[in-house]
Amino acid sequence: MSTKHIGKQTIIFSNPPSIDGHACVVGKKEGEGPLRNSFDYIGEDSYFGEKSWEKAETAMQKMAFSMACDKASVTPSSVEYVFAGDLLNQCVASAYSLRDTNIPFFGLYGACSTMAESIALAAIMVDGAFANTTAAVTSSHFCSAERQFRFPLEYGGQRTPTAQWTATAAGAVIITSQGNGPFITHVTTGRIKDAGITDMNNMGAAMAVAAYDTLTAHFNDTKLSPSDYDLIVTGDLGAIGHSIVMDFFKKDGVDLAPNYDDCGLMLYDRKEQDVHAGGSGCGCSASVLCGYLLNGMRNGRWNRILFAATGALMSPVTTGQGESIPGICHAVTISVNKGI
Amino acid sequence: MSTKHIGKQTIIFSNPPSIDGHACVVGKKEGEGPLRNSFDYIGEDSYFGEKSWEKAETAMQKMAFSMACDKASVTPSSVEYVFAGDLLNQCVASAYSLRDTNIPFFGLYGACSTMAESIALAAIMVDGAFANTTAAVTSSHFCSAERQFRFPLEYGGQRTPTAQWTATAAGAVIITSQGNGPFITHVTTGRIKDAGITDMNNMGAAMAVAAYDTLTAHFNDTKLSPSDYDLIVTGDLGAIGHSIVMDFFKKDGVDLAPNYDDCGLMLYDRKEQDVHAGGSGCGCSASVLCGYLLNGMRNGRWNRILFAATGALMSPVTTGQGESIPGICHAVTISVNKGI
Repeated sequence: MSTKHIGKQTIIFSNPPSIDGHACVVGKKEGEGPLRNSFDYIGEDSYFGEKSWEKAETAMQKMAFSMACDKASVTPSSVEYVFAGDLLNQCVASAYSLRDTNIPFFGLYGACSTMAESIALAAIMVDGAFANTTAAVTSSHFCSAERQFRFPLEYGGQRTPTAQWTATAAGAVIITSQGNGPFITHVTTGRIKDAGITDMNNMGAAMAVAAYDTLTAHFNDTKLSPSDYDLIVTGDLGAIGHSIVMDFFKKDGVDLAPNYDDCGLMLYDRKEQDVHAGGSGCGCSASVLCGYLLNGMRNGRWNRILFAATGALMSPVTTGQGESIPGICHAVTISVNKGI
Repeated sequence: MSTKHIGKQTIIFSNPPSIDGHACVVGKKEGEGPLRNSFDYIGEDSYFGEKSWEKAETAMQKMAFSMACDKASVTPSSVEYVFAGDLLNQCVASAYSLRDTNIPFFGLYGACSTMAESIALAAIMVDGAFANTTAAVTSSHFCSAERQFRFPLEYGGQRTPTAQWTATAAGAVIITSQGNGPFITHVTTGRIKDAGITDMNNMGAAMAVAAYDTLTAHFNDTKLSPSDYDLIVTGDLGAIGHSIVMDFFKKDGVDLAPNYDDCGLMLYDRKEQDVHAGGSGCGCSASVLCGYLLNGMRNGRWNRILFAATGALMSPVTTGQGESIPGICHAVTISVNKGI
C-alpha cells in the first residue's frame, strides 16, 4: 500500500484540508502587546467572569471555539471531531470547555506544541476521508500555569532572565474538506528530543533542539528550503531558544534570519512588558496563529508559512527527581494555494 | 468527498489495520490475580529496578513497547508513529519512555480510555495510508497515581467501598497495514458525558454514562447488536459502573448480561485481593486487552470483541473546586476476520 508519507517524518496531503475559521481570545496583558489588533476578544482581567483561573481558562477555550465556528459558518454540532489539549493537569481546560458540545473528542497532551499537534491530527482526519469538518483547540493561562508548574502567585517568586511568560490565551481552528483555504499541505510530526537541560526556567533552550530536529526533517523530507517560505515561525522558544535554532542552522550553512520568527517573541513587547525571554504556553502559539498569522495570510501578507509549535514534556515531579527536559516540535505547512 | 463515517460517531475502515504485536507488563499484585498467565512480564515489586514510582512506570512502558515490537517482528525504528499517554501530570511516563526511540510521537490524554484512544488514532493513520506501521502505548501505576490523585501512600488513608484500585500495568500494541490480524474494523469515538457525580472515589459511576453513550452510538451507527459480539468489554468501570451500564441497557430492552464484562472486574479477584469496586487506571484495560483478550482471540476463544475503554476527565483541582466528573469512552471493534 502506498502511503502519503515522504521522507522520515512528513505527510503530504493529497487533498489539502482548509482552515475555514480561526479565532483567539487573550488576557489583558496580551491585549496590550504588539498584536493587540489581531485578537477576537481581549479579557478585562484574568477571570473572564469565572471564580477560578482554571474555570477562566475553560471559558476562554469555549469562547475561542464558538467564535471559530461562527467565522467558519459551521454549527458546533456539524463538527465531527475535536482535538484539544492544554497545560493543566489532566488537560481539564479542554475537557470542561468541550463537555457540553457533544462532539466526538480526542484529548491530546503536547504541552505548548498542542496547536500544531491538534491541527495535524484534525487535518489527517479530513484528508483521510474520516471526516469533513474537524476542530483543533488549545489554551493556557498565566495564573493557572504558574501555580501548577512553579509557585503560587501570592508567593511573589522572582523570575530568572531565561524564564518565559505563560500566555493567557486560547485559540481554535475549524478545518474542512471543501473550504477555500488557507490550506494545510504538509505535516511534519516531531520526535522527542532531549538536550540534557534540567532548568525548568529555561524551556526555550530545552525545546530548541526539538525545533531544529523537526525543521531539519521537514526541509529534508520535502526538499523545500527555508526560502520557499514567506515565514517560518516556531512555537514559543523565546529569545534564547530562537537564537539557538538560528545558531544550529548557521552551523549547517543556512541563514534563517530573513524569514524566521518565534511566537514567543511576537506576542509581547519584551522590553515594555517585562516578560523576560518571551511568551510561552499552548495559548502563545495558538493565539499568534489564530490571529496575526492567519489574518495576515488572508490579507495577502504571506502566502506560505511553516508553523512549528514547540513543547516541553517534563513535569514538576520529573524535574524534582533530577530528570532533564524533553522537548517536541510539530510543524504544519499552511499555504493560500492548494497546490504544493 | 465521501467519508468512511457511518452514523454519528463511527468510522468503518476500508482496509482494516492489523494488530501484529501486543504486550503487557504488570506489577506483583496484578500478577497474583486471575489473569496471571496472560502477562508478558510480572514485576517483583513496585519499582521495576528504578528509584521512583514515576520512573518505574516509565520502565514498564518501555518494556511493554519493546516486547510488542519483538512479538510483531518489527524494529522500533520501523514504527512510523507512536500514540501514547498516561495518567501522570503532563503524561510524563509516555514522554520519558519514548524519549530515546526517535519515533514521531503524538501525545494523548484520555485518562483511562487511552488504550482505545491510542489504538483508534494509530489505526486511522494506517487505514488512511499515512503510515504502514504505528504503535499505541499506555500505562498506570498504583503508587504514582495514588499520591498524585488522592493521598501519599504513607498516609494510610482508608478507601471507600466505591473506590477502585489503579492498576500497576502497561500495554502496547503494534498496528500494521499488512498483517494477519486480529483486525481493527470499526472505531466509535466518544463524546464527553457528565452525570453530575462529584465523588472522586466513585469513578465507575461517573464513567458509566459515557460507556452507555458510546456503546449505544456504536450499535446505532453500525446496525450491529450486542449479540453480534462474542464479548463486549468496557474499560475500567468496576462493579458499580458495570451494573449501571447493564441497567441502562435493560431500560432500553437490551440484556447485555450474556457477553458483557469489564476490565476492572477481570484484572483482580475482588474478594481475595481487596480492590473494593475493582481495577482502574490506563494500565487496567491496556493489560487486559494486550494479554488475556488478544491472546484469547489468537487462540480462537473469541472472534469479535468490542473494546470500550473508559476515562474520567477530572483533576484533583477541578474536584476541589466543586466540579462534577466528566467521562469519556472510546470503542474499537477487533475481529479475527478482515471482513465486516
